[in-house]
Amino acid sequence: MKFIAHIDIMPHDALLDPQGKAVEGGLAKLNLSTLTQVRVGKHIRLQVEADNSGDAGALVDSACRHLLANTIMERFQYRLEELV
Amino acid sequence: MKFIAHIDIMPHDALLDPQGKAVEGGLAKLNLSTLTQVRVGKHIRLQVEADNSGDAGALVDSACRHLLANTIMERFQYRLEELV
Repeated sequence: MKFIAHIDIMPHDALLDPQGKAVEGGLAKLNLSTLTQVRVGKHIRLQVEADNSGDAGALVDSACRHLLANTIMERFQYRLEELV
Repeated sequence: MKFIAHIDIMPHDALLDPQGKAVEGGLAKLNLSTLTQVRVGKHIRLQVEADNSGDAGALVDSACRHLLANTIMERFQYRLEELV
């Protein structure tokens, strides 16, 4: 079975996000100051080949922990979509 | 009303994504070669203050077009979540 994994990797809420702060400043200069509390992270989409969604989830979890996310500074979440 | 906007900004499918290719190589070295077709983009979360979800969507759309996304190379999509 094939799945598409949509992964979001974001800085922990407790940490300062300088990139988000910079974007917030830019938005304010564009008269978009009603947009606040900007946090910038990564979005990763990939295809998984696995026997079932449980196995696919385990593979994606392993990839996030070992390569994609720095779990000291970032948290990740993902959703799987089955390819038909 | 306050909303949280979850924005995904991804490279167009027709374009090469060198960062995604590099991640794919890294995954293969971690014995995760069943994870393929990696695309890396940005995930942005921000808070919107607007009268209704239509106005909030228009603000987020404007922010994406004018600052957050390079619409020549990237496409964006977002979903709004009402803060209660």
